Amino acid sequence: MTSGLLAVALPPLPQVRPGDDLAAMAIEAWRSLADEDPSLAPAAGDVLVVTQKVVSKAEGRVVDLRTVQPRPAAVDFAARFERDARQVEVVLRESVDILRMERGVIISRTAHGFVCANAGVDASNVGEPDTVTLLPEDPDASARGIRDRLVAAFGVPIGVIVSDSFGRPWRWGITDVALGVAGFAPLDDLRGHPDADGRVMHATVVAVADEIASAAELASGKVTGRPLTLVRGATLPDGDGTVARDVVMPRDADLFT
Amino acid sequence: MTSGLLAVALPPLPQVRPGDDLAAMAIEAWRSLADEDPSLAPAAGDVLVVTQKVVSKAEGRVVDLRTVQPRPAAVDFAARFERDARQVEVVLRESVDILRMERGVIISRTAHGFVCANAGVDASNVGEPDTVTLLPEDPDASARGIRDRLVAAFGVPIGVIVSDSFGRPWRWGITDVALGVAGFAPLDDLRGHPDADGRVMHATVVAVADEIASAAELASGKVTGRPLTLVRGATLPDGDGTVARDVVMPRDADLFT
Repeated sequence: MTSGLLAVALPPLPQVRPGDDLAAMAIEAWRSLADEDPSLAPAAGDVLVVTQKVVSKAEGRVVDLRTVQPRPAAVDFAARFERDARQVEVVLRESVDILRMERGVIISRTAHGFVCANAGVDASNVGEPDTVTLLPEDPDASARGIRDRLVAAFGVPIGVIVSDSFGRPWRWGITDVALGVAGFAPLDDLRGHPDADGRVMHATVVAVADEIASAAELASGKVTGRPLTLVRGATLPDGDGTVARDVVMPRDADLFT
Repeated sequence: MTSGLLAVALPPLPQVRPGDDLAAMAIEAWRSLADEDPSLAPAAGDVLVVTQKVVSKAEGRVVDLRTVQPRPAAVDFAARFERDARQVEVVLRESVDILRMERGVIISRTAHGFVCANAGVDASNVGEPDTVTLLPEDPDASARGIRDRLVAAFGVPIGVIVSDSFGRPWRWGITDVALGVAGFAPLDDLRGHPDADGRVMHATVVAVADEIASAAELASGKVTGRPLTLVRGATLPDGDGTVARDVVMPRDADLFT
């Protein structure tokens, strides 16, 4: 066997509903994967990547649009761009700062500090009509809750990422990033380590958790109903950390925008 | 064997110098990997991810800083932030548009349309003192040149990515992205495909090439001198494409900034 990075989708989950025990479903799915292929039984250093959608659903972070009364600005924007005014209203409620609101697209900052389209509010793959999901209130806590259960069930140190697909400036296309992590630090700070020439690298802080989320997306895809992915072989930075504290950049530190 | 995504670093290359035949070195490295593990012999759908640094070096995209006369603005900026004025000068030459120039950091747009720190000019891992690398002039062409040689040598359709590590707004840490691709389309356009509920997804264009570059980074790391990584198991979007045409966003389309 060659060492390297491996990403494997776990078996599909049944439709997740508010109040479902997602950790138990993940444990069962992983056991079922390991029954098929014992080499994929949980091992130290494994990371389970869980998509935001199922986390939000299990946590009840869903909104029935039939209960939503849109403000005039939402009605106006929705009418101009053929969007659902109630969904626009939910996006505005989830936004603490609107960066852009044009051409039918809302780019905003959420209370977590994430900058993304529609404040992470999503109508696809929800499984119910007239229903949208919100981002988890505290995705790091969501990851930690799942991780604690996995570690208790399997007896090995495992990392957990809650992932979502974000667009970005300057480049077309979305990539998956980590909204929350547990069991390892999301950044690998190589500053001060010598590079291959023995030079000290000054600005190399690798967003390992985001790269793991992207690798997981490649293995599980968008349309297959596989919200859980095992990623094995990444070098996980020591220590605990959170996306909220370690990855989200304070506005005044941001030189890109 | 479980199907999934696999990323494996190829054996280290010797120091790459201007004029070196990088494709020949990659072919030899891959053959050596396959000698160790025949399951990793080149196969249809494999992607070879090659870091920008070795591509730039082989293409002679290196600058001897001893030949560089910095302009006054470069001298001033370098003095204030303890940087090398000659390197700052090269960064300014490689920039078509300066977004920020403060706190010792230059964020700019290159002629390719990439927005990144220091216009991609890099002094780490170059292997020579007083030398920096520039980004390849046409990274898609670089990828295509390597791909043509790999396909001729191995007789199977292989994709190639030229990758680099970029920072991004709003989040700490760098992730690897594709500067150039050959042999597949860098974006997977799922718009119009039904999701798991049968709904049509409206805004899902996955930046597959960028995610593959990130997965490769996890396997090969920053300090190990392994600039070549095999990524197997990604679903490659049909068709040819380039990063320049398909991924780089025209400024007026960008709602994030």
